[in-house]
Amino acid sequence: MKISNVVITGGTHGNEYTGIYLLRKMQQTSFSRRWGDLKVELLHANPEAYALNKRFVDADLNRCFTQKILSDDTLTSYEAERAQEINQLIGPKESSATDMIIDMHTTTASMGVTLILVNDDSFNFRMAAYVQSKLENCYVYHVPALNYAGNLDHPFLNSLAPYGFLLEVGPIANSLVRHDVLEQTYAAICAALEFVTLTNANQPPAIDEQLEVYQHAHTVNFPTDAEGHIAGYIHKDLQDRDYQLLKKGTAIFEMLNGDVIHFEEEGCYYPVFINEAAYYYQKIAFSLTEKVTIDLA
Amino acid sequence: MKISNVVITGGTHGNEYTGIYLLRKMQQTSFSRRWGDLKVELLHANPEAYALNKRFVDADLNRCFTQKILSDDTLTSYEAERAQEINQLIGPKESSATDMIIDMHTTTASMGVTLILVNDDSFNFRMAAYVQSKLENCYVYHVPALNYAGNLDHPFLNSLAPYGFLLEVGPIANSLVRHDVLEQTYAAICAALEFVTLTNANQPPAIDEQLEVYQHAHTVNFPTDAEGHIAGYIHKDLQDRDYQLLKKGTAIFEMLNGDVIHFEEEGCYYPVFINEAAYYYQKIAFSLTEKVTIDLA
Repeated sequence: MKISNVVITGGTHGNEYTGIYLLRKMQQTSFSRRWGDLKVELLHANPEAYALNKRFVDADLNRCFTQKILSDDTLTSYEAERAQEINQLIGPKESSATDMIIDMHTTTASMGVTLILVNDDSFNFRMAAYVQSKLENCYVYHVPALNYAGNLDHPFLNSLAPYGFLLEVGPIANSLVRHDVLEQTYAAICAALEFVTLTNANQPPAIDEQLEVYQHAHTVNFPTDAEGHIAGYIHKDLQDRDYQLLKKGTAIFEMLNGDVIHFEEEGCYYPVFINEAAYYYQKIAFSLTEKVTIDLA
Repeated sequence: MKISNVVITGGTHGNEYTGIYLLRKMQQTSFSRRWGDLKVELLHANPEAYALNKRFVDADLNRCFTQKILSDDTLTSYEAERAQEINQLIGPKESSATDMIIDMHTTTASMGVTLILVNDDSFNFRMAAYVQSKLENCYVYHVPALNYAGNLDHPFLNSLAPYGFLLEVGPIANSLVRHDVLEQTYAAICAALEFVTLTNANQPPAIDEQLEVYQHAHTVNFPTDAEGHIAGYIHKDLQDRDYQLLKKGTAIFEMLNGDVIHFEEEGCYYPVFINEAAYYYQKIAFSLTEKVTIDLA
């Protein structure tokens, strides 16, 4: 198996500036030319949302890459049309001209450098293991379509290609650039492209035989009041504890009236996306994952 | 001098959720009734901007409280009209029925708990000294109209009343609530109201004889390219160094092309609002202050 071309996308969410600035930096510094015969292209996914300094114009672009949306020409939202355009540019999904996509995102949650994998391909797991070995505070979060959407039609942009990942770096506020977060993002991309070029040259780098993966289980909503408004906030005992075992009995919310809500679920869950600003409108407070070990040998 | 009434405002910027949630918490927990005969009122300043999850609808509300804007009935922006409405509700400016305003804000910059004072009143400096003595990581930032706007017509909401301050807590991303930031904000307000009630009862609490104040000097813009777009980002040597002496020669920006820009100004400056997301649209990278000592004895 050889990877011939890679598309690096940024600004899929218009207020996540890191990817947008890093694309501009890559353009100005001829980043694409450094990878031998591996073709590396850059794509600013949602420039309209960036112009408005918003996550999206009409709908979340990173939920628009299902076959259902990509094949429906009656849709008129900006993001549905843009998804169809991107599908033509670098897809089409399931028979893509693009081998690999790295889609750059940021989060307000303390998720370090998280590689989100959307399928079960072993090359992706091995690439993730290599990237993880090169970076501090790097995690692999597995979000297959069935776990995430309840069916096999994945909505993420990077599901257009069989290989690659969504890169989620944080914590960082929206609508700004941090030098350190930009450097972490850049380092993860370089490590992935190193892995690809070495593997293409039949010199796959050594990696550990096993990979710890956090597998998406389900989301947890904020408590709401009688009118449906969010009626509390993440308790400080949970804030910033992404990827740490969430023990039963841990305080997870403080209500506006002062009550404290504790975690009552049975099972070994590791929370992620704790207090992600972009999910308030859906009233999602955090997601739960289960830790699994994948054999790479 | 006796302070009879205080208005606590939040949501002046619609995407700074801390103040908005804290107002709701104060309502649900009967906060206003705890201060004896001191009348404490709560005001959600910009509910329309909150509904849109934006800093403002048409214009920054916290720049609309000049006499020029408050007296111009030809203005039609949502925020100009809302400022005039608030001026009628709790003003009018210069002869206000409200003695004191605390206006709750948050920032993406690492400014801890910052009390922004907009005039030279000695009661405000003494109250700030008391609040500072009660909190960790608390700073006093003096932004008189002349330094900030170049004239004597202050644009901030809290300039409607002679006493009080703007509270600026961070770092925190926009459009979310952090338990710790909410608690810091609450603690600062309680300390201020304690100072007021003790002073009203002719039992002013002991404070230090001197107060360190960071006085607004001027803003520093991001470097831009030929088209006027921001062409770099805050260097990691400056990021999160709010209130730390900015030495000549310090790296302050990294450009997209890799160049580094160093601080070249002469003088003893302390930066604040380093990498505040809300100021990107004006291309402001940070502000500079000078440290002065105020005699409170």
